Amino acid sequence: MCRWLAYSGTPVLLEELLYKPAHSLIDQSLHSRLGAETTNGDGFGVGWYGEGDEPGVFKSIEPAWNDRNLRELSGHIRSGLVFAHIRASSGTPIQQTNCHPFRHGRWLWMHNGAIARFHDVKRELMLAVDPSLYSNVEGSTDSEAFFFLALTLGLEDDPPGAVERAVGLIEDVGLRKGIEHPIQMTVATSDGENLWGFRYSSEGKSRSLFYSTRVDTLREQYPDNPVLHGLSDETRLVVSEPLGDLAGAWNEVPESSYGLIQKGQDELRPFKPRPPA
Amino acid sequence: MCRWLAYSGTPVLLEELLYKPAHSLIDQSLHSRLGAETTNGDGFGVGWYGEGDEPGVFKSIEPAWNDRNLRELSGHIRSGLVFAHIRASSGTPIQQTNCHPFRHGRWLWMHNGAIARFHDVKRELMLAVDPSLYSNVEGSTDSEAFFFLALTLGLEDDPPGAVERAVGLIEDVGLRKGIEHPIQMTVATSDGENLWGFRYSSEGKSRSLFYSTRVDTLREQYPDNPVLHGLSDETRLVVSEPLGDLAGAWNEVPESSYGLIQKGQDELRPFKPRPPA
Amino acid sequence: MCRWLAYSGTPVLLEELLYKPAHSLIDQSLHSRLGAETTNGDGFGVGWYGEGDEPGVFKSIEPAWNDRNLRELSGHIRSGLVFAHIRASSGTPIQQTNCHPFRHGRWLWMHNGAIARFHDVKRELMLAVDPSLYSNVEGSTDSEAFFFLALTLGLEDDPPGAVERAVGLIEDVGLRKGIEHPIQMTVATSDGENLWGFRYSSEGKSRSLFYSTRVDTLREQYPDNPVLHGLSDETRLVVSEPLGDLAGAWNEVPESSYGLIQKGQDELRPFKPRPPA
Amino acid sequence: MCRWLAYSGTPVLLEELLYKPAHSLIDQSLHSRLGAETTNGDGFGVGWYGEGDEPGVFKSIEPAWNDRNLRELSGHIRSGLVFAHIRASSGTPIQQTNCHPFRHGRWLWMHNGAIARFHDVKRELMLAVDPSLYSNVEGSTDSEAFFFLALTLGLEDDPPGAVERAVGLIEDVGLRKGIEHPIQMTVATSDGENLWGFRYSSEGKSRSLFYSTRVDTLREQYPDNPVLHGLSDETRLVVSEPLGDLAGAWNEVPESSYGLIQKGQDELRPFKPRPPA
Repeated sequence: MCRWLAYSGTPVLLEELLYKPAHSLIDQSLHSRLGAETTNGDGFGVGWYGEGDEPGVFKSIEPAWNDRNLRELSGHIRSGLVFAHIRASSGTPIQQTNCHPFRHGRWLWMHNGAIARFHDVKRELMLAVDPSLYSNVEGSTDSEAFFFLALTLGLEDDPPGAVERAVGLIEDVGLRKGIEHPIQMTVATSDGENLWGFRYSSEGKSRSLFYSTRVDTLREQYPDNPVLHGLSDETRLVVSEPLGDLAGAWNEVPESSYGLIQKGQDELRPFKPRPPA
Repeated sequence: MCRWLAYSGTPVLLEELLYKPAHSLIDQSLHSRLGAETTNGDGFGVGWYGEGDEPGVFKSIEPAWNDRNLRELSGHIRSGLVFAHIRASSGTPIQQTNCHPFRHGRWLWMHNGAIARFHDVKRELMLAVDPSLYSNVEGSTDSEAFFFLALTLGLEDDPPGAVERAVGLIEDVGLRKGIEHPIQMTVATSDGENLWGFRYSSEGKSRSLFYSTRVDTLREQYPDNPVLHGLSDETRLVVSEPLGDLAGAWNEVPESSYGLIQKGQDELRPFKPRPPA
Repeated sequence: MCRWLAYSGTPVLLEELLYKPAHSLIDQSLHSRLGAETTNGDGFGVGWYGEGDEPGVFKSIEPAWNDRNLRELSGHIRSGLVFAHIRASSGTPIQQTNCHPFRHGRWLWMHNGAIARFHDVKRELMLAVDPSLYSNVEGSTDSEAFFFLALTLGLEDDPPGAVERAVGLIEDVGLRKGIEHPIQMTVATSDGENLWGFRYSSEGKSRSLFYSTRVDTLREQYPDNPVLHGLSDETRLVVSEPLGDLAGAWNEVPESSYGLIQKGQDELRPFKPRPPA
Repeated sequence: MCRWLAYSGTPVLLEELLYKPAHSLIDQSLHSRLGAETTNGDGFGVGWYGEGDEPGVFKSIEPAWNDRNLRELSGHIRSGLVFAHIRASSGTPIQQTNCHPFRHGRWLWMHNGAIARFHDVKRELMLAVDPSLYSNVEGSTDSEAFFFLALTLGLEDDPPGAVERAVGLIEDVGLRKGIEHPIQMTVATSDGENLWGFRYSSEGKSRSLFYSTRVDTLREQYPDNPVLHGLSDETRLVVSEPLGDLAGAWNEVPESSYGLIQKGQDELRPFKPRPPA
């Protein structure tokens, strides 16, 4: 099971997000909080918006808790929109091109979950990718194929609709192959301005996803955490697992829903796959 | 430009092939003998037949000249059929799944050269791969796609015919896309018994390929090289560049030809791409 | 906490030792059997005696459970004397030169445990290393320093005495620095003929160490494990944690003891540090 | 032979220094400009002053020309004081702890050259390192030992004097061991404010070192290089080899000299080793 974190708000050093909170993402990767789970030592990645037109991406196949370069960079890169992902491989090779977040132009994408029996549906899904995008797929994961399907189906114009169409397609292909529950997912994506977080699974028992409600509430929850001081009220975290233990700090994204973090009022809406016509 | 070596004959330690000859493959990767060429520091791989049903493969993205594990293994693995390849990337990522030799069952495959403008023809070539094999392609190189096309077109039954058909297909797709010279190649492949080496390019100016004629001749050429003592008369080397300087030791594989190393009399025959009907 | 395995007996493929047993070393590294422990994802190493005068060593800083090269090699290298070690760093960098087993000539050495407050005693211990050996220390771990102290103090002539003198020295230096419990250890070492396993700690609560008593007993314990068929009666395993669950298969090495695996009767004797005169 | 670059001046993206100039450092590492030299594919490192009290450091053992993370970071990190180093190992292992620049507190250090027969003098030099610093040496190179000798001998208070004393000590130890030319060096060091560059060798034939004289001159030399527009007049580059071909842009640091880049007037002075009293 992968873990991820998406941050939108006042620019902070990456280390404030990755290392400092109790139960930080790095910490979660080393000591799983739930006894039954395996360790997330199959590579990681960080994406951030800052200098330049495209977001920066740093990926490594060393375990995140060992990577000195990650620690160095985390202390020197400051950003107001950050993705971080720790991978537990579901079988595809451990290599940088299989690490999240994936990038296309200004877009970042990361995924926790799996396309069921991906080996059996990969070809059909890849054929559905826009031919002009096909050769840009660099790795071999289900998550990247899913990203390119969403790009093909309009991610850059209508993110929720594109993800609904991509999931509808994945379920359609899967069901035709006799796969009972074709997809399990939480997904984060961004264009550098807005941030979308999705929670869905074909079986209706999706991987967990949480968002922080209000910064003033968080500040009360973590009075000793220096990150939270001076954060704007619009600052938000979306995480696969809560980063702290205090009650009230986190809200679960409901089953079959997605959230939109944007300037002004954020939104939480139902998610409904759209099968191909 | 990649470099490769294929060995068939009396079992030897890998280090005899990789490190000890003058102008060994490792040495070639560090000091290019021809001034205009770039260094081959984009990963390497070794394949060998020995224990078990399938050949072993060791791959690394460190430069071959630095890799301590390669040196250790080379001193401890003995084989009578060895592939070694040093990669100079033509653009695809540096990762183990992009290193040669590629393996499928008992078959090994390695390639020097390129499918021209692979980014533009990749999708069409991948669609021609047998659907049951499609998801076994792990990396993103032209060379692995070429291997799976050959497998699709009968490599396991008729290696020369399958390679001729794969090249015919690549040329057909390329020419339809307006690519003047769709393929440049030397290829080695084996099933653990026989060894085939191909030299071809659409423009008729193929990368170099050499084979050693007779072990008794080689022994005379390299009286101080301990490898050559005790080698069977059927022992052969096929290499992208000669491993030594003595005149007479190496014969160039002619343009548009392939050789078959087998028990008994080896063969050298013309190679002629077969376009799709 | 590190984990290790030492094998002496009928030559087997490494994969029989590393991957196939229930609770194999690779498996232990991914799922710790004891809930309180961290994952061993800080590098690993394998050493084996085979071709050549010196043992071969393969080391990697990828997690063992991910390393494809380890899996390949394990299926192709056969040996009758094997060391394997999975590292959990106590702070020194994750790099191949810090992975066990360490090698000097024909000797291998691996260690589970730590020299307490190594940062504070390192210089004094390194000064005690034979000046002619000093520059051969490649990494920065306490375990390698300990190995070179043992070499300095006669490992090649009298292994138990040398280890007792090295531990005596480490305790002497530590106690003078006010360190209450200067050393915690299980150690395996071999010259390719015999195999010694040590269990000791200054506080008298040493890391666990187990040995397999008799192959005929093991065969009864693991009737389905193909490794155990055809093994000589002298075949032995020494492990930091048992590889299987069946009662009676494993015997704990007592506190402050060492065992010697050799041709003929093995031995189990008390271990008593010898302080410098 | 290593290559390095030090930059002081108007903050720029690292990519402006590493990738964009003709004959950039990355380019030099791939294609040596002088035919007789080997490729610099044995790891690299970048250090920069920015966020936080200490400089950031990024190191990798992949060849610099392949490293995607380096390219990403270079496009997202902006700094006014940058060190970059490409390593050609003189025998010590290829690992991050052996990559330059080395760091201690606010100090960075990088070195091109070698301490002759370091294996024979390492112990004596390491004994001369301040005992409180000894355990902070993480790697195994001559260059890091040299850095810690300079720190021991006053680098933080009097950099030129400390380097002269360190070189005096290295020469003294070497000469007593019968080493004709104990040291070959160009060195850069900084505390984040000032930048010192040294050129010296015992034999009087030192590795090359160049500095850029005036930004207005450089701007004329590279009218098309966007880096040079908007640079302050105090901006300087110090490099092991010129980054461009235009005559007049670079000045060689004379034999046995050092330069100081600081606010106001820079300085160029003679360098004279100071043997131990």
